[in-house]
Amino acid sequence: MCFRVQQNITVSEAQSIVDEFISNTGGYWPPFEMLAAIFEEAGELSKMLQLIEGSRAQKERPNFEKLEEEVGDVFFALICLANAYKISLAEALIKTVEKYKKRDFEKYEKYPSKSSP
Amino acid sequence: MCFRVQQNITVSEAQSIVDEFISNTGGYWPPFEMLAAIFEEAGELSKMLQLIEGSRAQKERPNFEKLEEEVGDVFFALICLANAYKISLAEALIKTVEKYKKRDFEKYEKYPSKSSP
Amino acid sequence: MCFRVQQNITVSEAQSIVDEFISNTGGYWPPFEMLAAIFEEAGELSKMLQLIEGSRAQKERPNFEKLEEEVGDVFFALICLANAYKISLAEALIKTVEKYKKRDFEKYEKYPSKSSP
Amino acid sequence: MCFRVQQNITVSEAQSIVDEFISNTGGYWPPFEMLAAIFEEAGELSKMLQLIEGSRAQKERPNFEKLEEEVGDVFFALICLANAYKISLAEALIKTVEKYKKRDFEKYEKYPSKSSP
Repeated sequence: MCFRVQQNITVSEAQSIVDEFISNTGGYWPPFEMLAAIFEEAGELSKMLQLIEGSRAQKERPNFEKLEEEVGDVFFALICLANAYKISLAEALIKTVEKYKKRDFEKYEKYPSKSSP
Repeated sequence: MCFRVQQNITVSEAQSIVDEFISNTGGYWPPFEMLAAIFEEAGELSKMLQLIEGSRAQKERPNFEKLEEEVGDVFFALICLANAYKISLAEALIKTVEKYKKRDFEKYEKYPSKSSP
Repeated sequence: MCFRVQQNITVSEAQSIVDEFISNTGGYWPPFEMLAAIFEEAGELSKMLQLIEGSRAQKERPNFEKLEEEVGDVFFALICLANAYKISLAEALIKTVEKYKKRDFEKYEKYPSKSSP
Repeated sequence: MCFRVQQNITVSEAQSIVDEFISNTGGYWPPFEMLAAIFEEAGELSKMLQLIEGSRAQKERPNFEKLEEEVGDVFFALICLANAYKISLAEALIKTVEKYKKRDFEKYEKYPSKSSP
């Protein structure tokens, strides 16, 4: 997969960018408000996806730019929570992928016929 | 802010890691199922945060490792949706931060007394 | 639509049942924790719906009983928040339906060709 | 708890009101879109709660009417999903309350000292 990225930042730098912004605007909110922000933004992402993909969507002119915006807002809100708990998103992601790989591997081991071509 | 990262990957690489995993396991789900996955994982993050920070939480032994895991799972689910729409999370984030900075700037311009020390 | 209901309670009685239970177990949580509970339960509903309707669901044996359970849990969590703010869910619902009817009516007025057979 | 209700409808009637409205407007959406609607509305509820209770909320003039509206919208979206699966919300709620009572009872049985005064 190839992304045309102008912004070739590391995940850690992404977290620092958010941290710097938050530091300049009063600091992180309390935990449950950061969570509420994640759900607010994810709700807007949901609304946008319905406009693009939903049964009654006007599919001739999907607004992908607005979808990108909502994805960015959710990412920002998630980084806030991660930053407040000093969680490295890069490490968290790697661990999640490892977990999923292990889960799949065990599934294949158990039902080997499914993994064969 | 300083993260002790062993995994110094770019945001773009993070998206590629997920893309490779998904490619090997049958491809991306339909849009609303990817969205449902985000909410499922965010719901588990919510549960974990309640166990750590909630009124009835056993705060003496907060499980930060499990919180990291849930954050990683949400990040993974968000990357899936972004990947499926070829959205660069790095660019999306930068735009979100720019938007918030602009919003704050306009607020300060409008009510300058608030921004002065 | 016909529901085989053994429990023919009013919406107001449903709210009272939850209120009585909460009163006996320490009272309502702070606002953002009640919200977090709604999202936790809605996340479990999302997980269950994926198991029933998702691309990789084992559709031969959908567990509708578990879906009912998750719907009940979300309803409970929503009632908690409504109760804490003395919101009548019956009145709130009627207002929502009125709002949607008005919205649809205006849409039809604007584009009358769409509403005609 | 006493609600000043003008609308003394049963939970079953509430479901029928929504069913009638949906029948007149094209029928229920596919499952994952109904779920997406729940999360969209719950996201708006989250936004409203932040405006009322959040750290930076203008608490002098909380907009409880708008909160009622958002609660009504979530209730509507939840009823849609319940209706589409012929789930009785009244029965689902009673089962949830029974489950929670049983859970609490077992907790008390296990740690009797906690339940005594």
